[in-house]
Amino acid sequence: MKTGRKQIVVLGAGFGGLEFCKQLGHPDADITLIDRQNHHLFQPLLYQVATAGLSATDIAQPIRSILAHLPQVTVLLDEVTGFRLAEKQVILGDHTRSYDYLVIALGGCTSYFGHPEWERFAPGLKSLQDALQIRNRILLAFEQAESDVTPERHSRLLTIVVIGGGPTGVELAGACAELCRHVLQTDFRHIHTRETHIILLEAAPRILAHLPPELSASARRQLEALGVQVRTDTKVKAITADCVELETGEIIRARTILWGAGVAANPLTRQLGVPLDRAGRIQVNPDRTLPGHPEVFAIGDLAAVLTPEGTPVPGVSPAAIQMARHVAGIIGDELAGHHLHAPRQPFHYHDKGTMATIGRSAAVAKIGRLEFSGFPAWLAWLGVHLLFLVGFRNKVTVLFQWFYSYLTYKRGARIITQLPPPPGPPPAG
Amino acid sequence: MKTGRKQIVVLGAGFGGLEFCKQLGHPDADITLIDRQNHHLFQPLLYQVATAGLSATDIAQPIRSILAHLPQVTVLLDEVTGFRLAEKQVILGDHTRSYDYLVIALGGCTSYFGHPEWERFAPGLKSLQDALQIRNRILLAFEQAESDVTPERHSRLLTIVVIGGGPTGVELAGACAELCRHVLQTDFRHIHTRETHIILLEAAPRILAHLPPELSASARRQLEALGVQVRTDTKVKAITADCVELETGEIIRARTILWGAGVAANPLTRQLGVPLDRAGRIQVNPDRTLPGHPEVFAIGDLAAVLTPEGTPVPGVSPAAIQMARHVAGIIGDELAGHHLHAPRQPFHYHDKGTMATIGRSAAVAKIGRLEFSGFPAWLAWLGVHLLFLVGFRNKVTVLFQWFYSYLTYKRGARIITQLPPPPGPPPAG
Repeated sequence: MKTGRKQIVVLGAGFGGLEFCKQLGHPDADITLIDRQNHHLFQPLLYQVATAGLSATDIAQPIRSILAHLPQVTVLLDEVTGFRLAEKQVILGDHTRSYDYLVIALGGCTSYFGHPEWERFAPGLKSLQDALQIRNRILLAFEQAESDVTPERHSRLLTIVVIGGGPTGVELAGACAELCRHVLQTDFRHIHTRETHIILLEAAPRILAHLPPELSASARRQLEALGVQVRTDTKVKAITADCVELETGEIIRARTILWGAGVAANPLTRQLGVPLDRAGRIQVNPDRTLPGHPEVFAIGDLAAVLTPEGTPVPGVSPAAIQMARHVAGIIGDELAGHHLHAPRQPFHYHDKGTMATIGRSAAVAKIGRLEFSGFPAWLAWLGVHLLFLVGFRNKVTVLFQWFYSYLTYKRGARIITQLPPPPGPPPAG
Repeated sequence: MKTGRKQIVVLGAGFGGLEFCKQLGHPDADITLIDRQNHHLFQPLLYQVATAGLSATDIAQPIRSILAHLPQVTVLLDEVTGFRLAEKQVILGDHTRSYDYLVIALGGCTSYFGHPEWERFAPGLKSLQDALQIRNRILLAFEQAESDVTPERHSRLLTIVVIGGGPTGVELAGACAELCRHVLQTDFRHIHTRETHIILLEAAPRILAHLPPELSASARRQLEALGVQVRTDTKVKAITADCVELETGEIIRARTILWGAGVAANPLTRQLGVPLDRAGRIQVNPDRTLPGHPEVFAIGDLAAVLTPEGTPVPGVSPAAIQMARHVAGIIGDELAGHHLHAPRQPFHYHDKGTMATIGRSAAVAKIGRLEFSGFPAWLAWLGVHLLFLVGFRNKVTVLFQWFYSYLTYKRGARIITQLPPPPGPPPAG
């Protein structure tokens, strides 16, 4: 550690962590960004990788590439295992790192409402690995159905259940329906679209419950037009291999069961010794700091915060980005000595809108008081996401992929990459 | 099986198997194409995925997409485990498939010259899984070197040994040198290009021994200009974790050891009960059939054949494609009844040239009697490969990727995708 230079440690290279690094421009600070992965993931499009619409490299970029132009930022591939807040240290396995300021932006993880045993049967969608596993499962189910199998097995292989009627579940269900509808027609000889069943289960009375009722209804109609069976007021009681049991006792047999129903904070928050909400999110002060630790900030999905109206700020990228800028401003001021003249400002969330896609050319969107759906909403979704997508090359590639996909229904990303290794070499002699 | 229609089973969806399916246009034949993977892989560019220059989806396309326009072709994801040639059946695990004609196009696998135990320390490059594993290993080595490590460990992490001076080894070594040279400069803060060592080991007196000596020398000069240390007349005695031992007793410590030195036929050839050469390739008749089995053909890398000059036909894609067309012609004639008037023609290989790239903008090439190197050879290589690349979308995407890569040195495919799963959800309560 260089004498005189402040050391800022940032945990997590999602939207929050990255934006902080880009915004904090002080010459006397060294920033160390730590992440378990070497890439930044554009999560809003992860469902497209899961349904073979985009490839992994279209939505991920190495963190180092993104921050290469900032020489004061060092990126380290490492894993946080704990904290020593009193000594101002982060624990990374068998070594530690000291800090003057700590920014925790570790994000969220999939939550199974107290049933962690469901995870192996119903994968969530938080990482590239999740998305690729889901894609493989869906594609392999089609492949198996193409061979001679019993009618019961044929039906089970072609049934996909999506649990959770929030944006993730709606997007997954719509994209699955599209995959089945457009891919099966041309690619497979012994299975047909009418044999597939995409079922979306939602415990509440309507899907997309955070949007106004008319948008929920519009989304439902659009999903049903795509062939998705939407079942609201439907609670899941148990999930086992190829099987979902509802609270009514009804059994649904499906080879592919996808979980889009719950998100919690990264479980490392429990190691901080500060108050957490029910989902494990840190109850931060208005300026984003941990109670009792003015040099430790928490931003993004693992920080609990309320809007002025008293509703929780959603775990979406614009919120993480705004929090990151707020904290960068605070720390920048303090490094420059400005804080001596003014106290830290509280964070205010400005809702820039929320949207969810339904299939290839439809969506629902609410921006401010403006609500719209169908193709215009999809265009808005496309524009907003391309704006946020990191790096020029990804924007053009994704745009090209989307247009080609849209025009031709082709899915170049429909490859399965995790099969057993090829046969080994012949033995000696 | 429909009465009267001939059943043709094709094993393997590489260049040979695919070309056969596309060329055989007889209305009375049903073709079943069987492969362990769901995608066709453009192997000449696999080394680019291994060195983070292209993504997996750029060089692979689902077999079904490629053959979707041929309704008489059914594609099955399945694995061949044996043969019953007398009963005209292929064994696929617990079931069998009967045929009137069988086309074996299973390709090759990496050979370790009687040392299968070397494979786990020195991966070969035959599948997407191989390429992604290699890419992860190289990138992770960089990541580890970025942290504080001992000088010895730092050096070992930044040393890459490529074994085998044929086209695969040369291309890997050149691409690794480029990756180190252009990526390290901007992306990493604590490691520098001069600390990296790329070493290419070749047992023969010169690399690219199948090309004329002046092209070998040109290739060597270009590799050395990129910073590769080329060591010919160098035999490997043993390979263990992070360590290569030469026959001289010298030890080279390297975190990344890549094998490009040997190719053998798919080991399933041993189950056919027909004569094989030393590399396990089938000693086919001039018309590509197995001795004693006029309805069974073998094409591509696992068929041994000599040119009119008596030299072995190399295991390259143009050879496989030519053999496929030849066999499709023979079978097509027989289905149409034409063969009653003329015997089967023997196969003649027309050498369309051979080339190998060296880094981003150089290569060596021999087409007919024309030999050239440097940038013009690289352009020729680019043109030929794009011509062979299957599917419109791949061509444009790969072209775009290459040009962007070439202009900006950016490597969008530098992501590591196989890290441990993210933290699980919090426990109940």
